[in-house]
Amino acid sequence: MSQAHENSQECKDGVLAGLAGGNGTEKSNSEKEKMDKNNNKFLIIPNNCEVCSSDIAPEDGKTIEPTTVEPASITSTKPSSLIHESTPEPTSSEMSTGLFSPSLDLRHSTFIEDENERESDMKPQTRYSDGSVRLRNPHIELMDQDILYHLALGSESHDLIEMFQDIKFVCIGGTPKRMEEFAYFIMREIGHKIPTGTQLLDISQYSYRYSMYKVGPVLSVSHGMGIPSVSILLHEVIKLMYHAKARDPVFFRIGTCGGIGIDGGNVIITEEALNSELKPYHEISVLGKKIRRPSKLDRRLREDLLSLAHEKDNAYDTVVGKTMCTDDFYEGQARLDGCICEYSEKEKMSYLCELNRNGVTNIEMESLAFAALTHHAGVRAAVVCVSLLDRLKGDQVLAAKEVLNEWQLRPQILIAQYIKKELGLIPIQRKSPILSSFPAIPCSCPHSTVMRVKSPRRMNMVQQESESYD
Amino acid sequence: MSQAHENSQECKDGVLAGLAGGNGTEKSNSEKEKMDKNNNKFLIIPNNCEVCSSDIAPEDGKTIEPTTVEPASITSTKPSSLIHESTPEPTSSEMSTGLFSPSLDLRHSTFIEDENERESDMKPQTRYSDGSVRLRNPHIELMDQDILYHLALGSESHDLIEMFQDIKFVCIGGTPKRMEEFAYFIMREIGHKIPTGTQLLDISQYSYRYSMYKVGPVLSVSHGMGIPSVSILLHEVIKLMYHAKARDPVFFRIGTCGGIGIDGGNVIITEEALNSELKPYHEISVLGKKIRRPSKLDRRLREDLLSLAHEKDNAYDTVVGKTMCTDDFYEGQARLDGCICEYSEKEKMSYLCELNRNGVTNIEMESLAFAALTHHAGVRAAVVCVSLLDRLKGDQVLAAKEVLNEWQLRPQILIAQYIKKELGLIPIQRKSPILSSFPAIPCSCPHSTVMRVKSPRRMNMVQQESESYD
Repeated sequence: MSQAHENSQECKDGVLAGLAGGNGTEKSNSEKEKMDKNNNKFLIIPNNCEVCSSDIAPEDGKTIEPTTVEPASITSTKPSSLIHESTPEPTSSEMSTGLFSPSLDLRHSTFIEDENERESDMKPQTRYSDGSVRLRNPHIELMDQDILYHLALGSESHDLIEMFQDIKFVCIGGTPKRMEEFAYFIMREIGHKIPTGTQLLDISQYSYRYSMYKVGPVLSVSHGMGIPSVSILLHEVIKLMYHAKARDPVFFRIGTCGGIGIDGGNVIITEEALNSELKPYHEISVLGKKIRRPSKLDRRLREDLLSLAHEKDNAYDTVVGKTMCTDDFYEGQARLDGCICEYSEKEKMSYLCELNRNGVTNIEMESLAFAALTHHAGVRAAVVCVSLLDRLKGDQVLAAKEVLNEWQLRPQILIAQYIKKELGLIPIQRKSPILSSFPAIPCSCPHSTVMRVKSPRRMNMVQQESESYD
Repeated sequence: MSQAHENSQECKDGVLAGLAGGNGTEKSNSEKEKMDKNNNKFLIIPNNCEVCSSDIAPEDGKTIEPTTVEPASITSTKPSSLIHESTPEPTSSEMSTGLFSPSLDLRHSTFIEDENERESDMKPQTRYSDGSVRLRNPHIELMDQDILYHLALGSESHDLIEMFQDIKFVCIGGTPKRMEEFAYFIMREIGHKIPTGTQLLDISQYSYRYSMYKVGPVLSVSHGMGIPSVSILLHEVIKLMYHAKARDPVFFRIGTCGGIGIDGGNVIITEEALNSELKPYHEISVLGKKIRRPSKLDRRLREDLLSLAHEKDNAYDTVVGKTMCTDDFYEGQARLDGCICEYSEKEKMSYLCELNRNGVTNIEMESLAFAALTHHAGVRAAVVCVSLLDRLKGDQVLAAKEVLNEWQLRPQILIAQYIKKELGLIPIQRKSPILSSFPAIPCSCPHSTVMRVKSPRRMNMVQQESESYD
């Protein structure tokens, strides 16, 4: 694989050709679109990568069958077994969806493929009759108190019903900063008001681990990096919803990712989270035994989000695709720029193109556990990420800070649209230049929202004047 | 298993009997000690757990052979294969320690068991002749610039040699707060001075992910929670050491953990990091293939730390033991208090006692990747954790905040002793009440150190007076 391939200039009609806007603000000419029966616009990922096709000779004499790559936005029910032909598919005895029983053997539960059947089957185990969250853990209600360590909250120290019963949407994302910004953003979007002289509080500040903000029915929480970190958070937030008697909360992960054949700036809604072997389950070790939980996300929620995304003619694309979730950012994602790299650029490119041919549209580090845990807990959930770069073109993110900041707003805008629709709010007329033009850096959060600004221009003048005086 | 067992009052002579101080400040009567040839004091973990022995009937007709449990402090070279007899041991072809080659097949590298042989073998690959860090990645030096995203540093944007060449010790731990406190603590310990009117800067503040502080030759960095988070940090910090041309830096993880038969407040130096199957390797997925890296820590460093710990008659014990590293805090560590729990208390206790009989002294979530990555990069490293509770007695940490804060200082004190010794510093006479009595909450970091306080008592009075005036 030549350096030129890395720069992707020579690759014309294959995966490397701009599937989406070059810098995220314009769509490329080579883009191919398709309309489905609902008039939703899909991008088609071509199957032939001219440059790489010769590099993907099957190893060890294995035959790799040609596959028809499905559009990124169409759900495939076919197992992605190309890369690891020898890896057995999970059998019904390996997938655990079993309910609690003191003598339960987790490895002999039944995995039900059909999503609707599954939902109705799960409901009595994960919801009380009034729709409030029920836990798949009979021990909790026997405990004197339940301390949610990593949130700095407790069932007996805090009135969790009073504080959190009205939560309808739980939005989680990587950094405390992004989730604080999202909290102020959603506050503005849904027109939620807090008293003059107040600002949002980081409810979990004394955990020193996650940051949590509450804006009316929306919880905005940071989850750190990687599956273990997001798992701890989800265990405790789902318990929080249980203690609070919140009804049918919907969970969103708002993130960033590396695109595979998807340029930086485009938005990807995860159809299915895959592990590093491209299998749609999360394997965890429980009491020394491996169990696998299907990493499913809510189909209806995904479709609603896609419809909303296509209501507007954005300067970027929103697609549905398969998301590979890894436990490592460098070697685990075939980067060349980790402190250790024991493969060549050619091997890296072959691997990434292989992912592309298997329908993988993006790579990140949390979706697998997020999907598996929420699914098993009976929580409707979706993952919406913005691509920071096309990994078929390089490893390091080179877009300017202002551009990256604007890109990171895009998943937030989509989630805000959904929340507003669910709350029955008429879309707010966007007078603020922040929302209408999606500027690079949102102005300082508390002031722009809490201060009830009539004129942002004059507010900036006042602030500047104020700063000038000693 | 009865609730009484959970509370551990009935279990007299087995694993549940206090192996160390009850509340971390006194040693229990049932403790058994042993001296080695260097007069280091070891704790012996008994093999017979009266309460649990009946609960560990082998499943599926497998025979579990009786084993002689080794003292937690003595290195065992035997594979811990009791729990997963069917899991094959890694073969030489599965362990990857291979050096870079464009056509390298990672699965056919050779795993060399002997530590000394391994060290001499690795040295040319991981060090230049002057002792500065060399990377197992030939791509980095071909790059125009190397952006260390998660540290907010870059090889061309920052003069990394000027900034970091003097680093000798890299200390990492979970939260930004703890590592800021450690930075001020080590500053005081090594007598490092910064100009009046300055305070330590969070060098990585604009990454919004990790916090990094530099105190002379010591780097203090937060690593978040879990293997993915610590892996990202290590990749970038090792690259930072490379760009800075730092010579032979030593890495420490300073953490907290759940003890197995080790009461809260006692300190554990990891002899070997084990995965959830009790195997001493970290399995990662690289280009879709599973590779295993031995999770070895530096033996000499561990022995030096243990000797230092036993130079003083602390009110708590310091032991060497095997650390199990998990990807999940709740189900992965057999807790009953996650949002999902599909096993009984009895099954949980059987599992924990099984861990105990296999020589596991503690459980945490980072040591495996920390050991594997540093070992493969040729970096000498150690893991020192304080136990927050004995998991054989419960799941939730119930010690008071002040007690927990004091416990968390204990690994820091040991690392500080090592650093001072390495720097050739005569142990500082500890006049400050902070160090002599290890109080619960260290006073506010910048003021107690940067202000060059003559009398802490009078400083507190001045601060109180000052606060009283409007």
